[in-house]
Amino acid sequence: MSVIGLVSLVGAGPGDPDLITRRGARRLAEADLVLYDALVTPEMLHLAGRARRFPVGKRAGRPSIRQETIHGLMIRAARRGQRVVRLKCGDPFVFGRGGEEALALATAGIPCEVVPGVTTALAAPALAGIPVTHRGASSGFVVVSGHAESGYGRVLDSLVPHSLTVVVLMGLASHAALAARLVARGWSRETPAAVIFAASTADAEAWRGSLGELAGSAFPDEQRPGTIVIGDVAALGHARGGTGERAEAARAR
Amino acid sequence: MSVIGLVSLVGAGPGDPDLITRRGARRLAEADLVLYDALVTPEMLHLAGRARRFPVGKRAGRPSIRQETIHGLMIRAARRGQRVVRLKCGDPFVFGRGGEEALALATAGIPCEVVPGVTTALAAPALAGIPVTHRGASSGFVVVSGHAESGYGRVLDSLVPHSLTVVVLMGLASHAALAARLVARGWSRETPAAVIFAASTADAEAWRGSLGELAGSAFPDEQRPGTIVIGDVAALGHARGGTGERAEAARAR
Repeated sequence: MSVIGLVSLVGAGPGDPDLITRRGARRLAEADLVLYDALVTPEMLHLAGRARRFPVGKRAGRPSIRQETIHGLMIRAARRGQRVVRLKCGDPFVFGRGGEEALALATAGIPCEVVPGVTTALAAPALAGIPVTHRGASSGFVVVSGHAESGYGRVLDSLVPHSLTVVVLMGLASHAALAARLVARGWSRETPAAVIFAASTADAEAWRGSLGELAGSAFPDEQRPGTIVIGDVAALGHARGGTGERAEAARAR
Repeated sequence: MSVIGLVSLVGAGPGDPDLITRRGARRLAEADLVLYDALVTPEMLHLAGRARRFPVGKRAGRPSIRQETIHGLMIRAARRGQRVVRLKCGDPFVFGRGGEEALALATAGIPCEVVPGVTTALAAPALAGIPVTHRGASSGFVVVSGHAESGYGRVLDSLVPHSLTVVVLMGLASHAALAARLVARGWSRETPAAVIFAASTADAEAWRGSLGELAGSAFPDEQRPGTIVIGDVAALGHARGGTGERAEAARAR
């Protein structure tokens, strides 16, 4: 047998299965094997009709699956001719180690494609009515991960205060430290800030305040996923998309 | 008649109709009226079954439609009970003036929802095999528009050289100026750079080189859409998604 399968690195989007791309949904429907991250929702997995499904994400309190183990699972399945979907939250090439996985697959001679997804860095604010760019308020945005201070520290320190919108993914646990860091670098404590929890899901909610309040606030369960937005745009909030309640209500009339 | 319609600000993604979200596709299929940007592809518009369709984007050499005119079209159609899709390239809240449109609709009392899309800022590099973040190479990224120097200049000047990946949308016409600007601010001329043209379409192609070469290069038809990526990740290119040729070939075996 010389049949080799295909590995699709698919971005699931922010959570709602309506916000995956058409190609991503089709890859799921046709997959033999789905390896999914911890935050992928059960509703999303329903799109994978007949596939075997394995969680390979990092979960608090459990030993993580080694990256090399994930590579090995994908490579072996593809060599058996299987269609593999590596399903990642948001976009596979934004803090998803997708680049490493693509490299491992290329090195092993496995056909691989990237199916981009809606990144939570933009969808979370958008669904709360916050545009990351806005005429007169922001002409650019930066996205960092709050997971490791060594990563975000260098980037945040490099920014001229108030020059652009700052979006932090996976930053809830470090929200106070990074807010204090920006204040220490000259950002006004009055700079608007928002935190969006569980974007696009039924549990979605948003906190709004200032950078100074963010530095001094505690949130329940800081291991939750949360997206932090800092900058003048965080005070905006015209539209609601979310799970679509208002929209559906409007259409039902 | 007190029936009021709904306006959906929908992100079309980078161009390929397979890369719009499932919700975006459904809104198009159910729409009565679609107002679309200049770069939305004919293939994408096929998803809008029975809707009336009007181009409202800015095109080189023609007077642009005023933003207020677009607002008026949306508001009047919604007041007639129509389902309106405002279809924007990429994501509606990334340099799309979506925030302004959402505000105008809210002020007029029109129900509005945001349907996020895959931003070209991330999809263009991803489909060329470039992850904007990568362990050891980049722990964050910044996105600016190259449309107006007053916008990107302030942001680019604020960045510490080599601290993160830089993505420029709509920047082909100003590629030389912005590359020279980064070099003048201390970025190495050897910094890898890439330009992706017509991402996700049949005409997709990528140029790769260095920041110094970008400052000194001329491209044919610089009014074309192009996405510029600057940073170590621009030298990566493991996987190809693109229009899916390699993937489809692999599956056809």
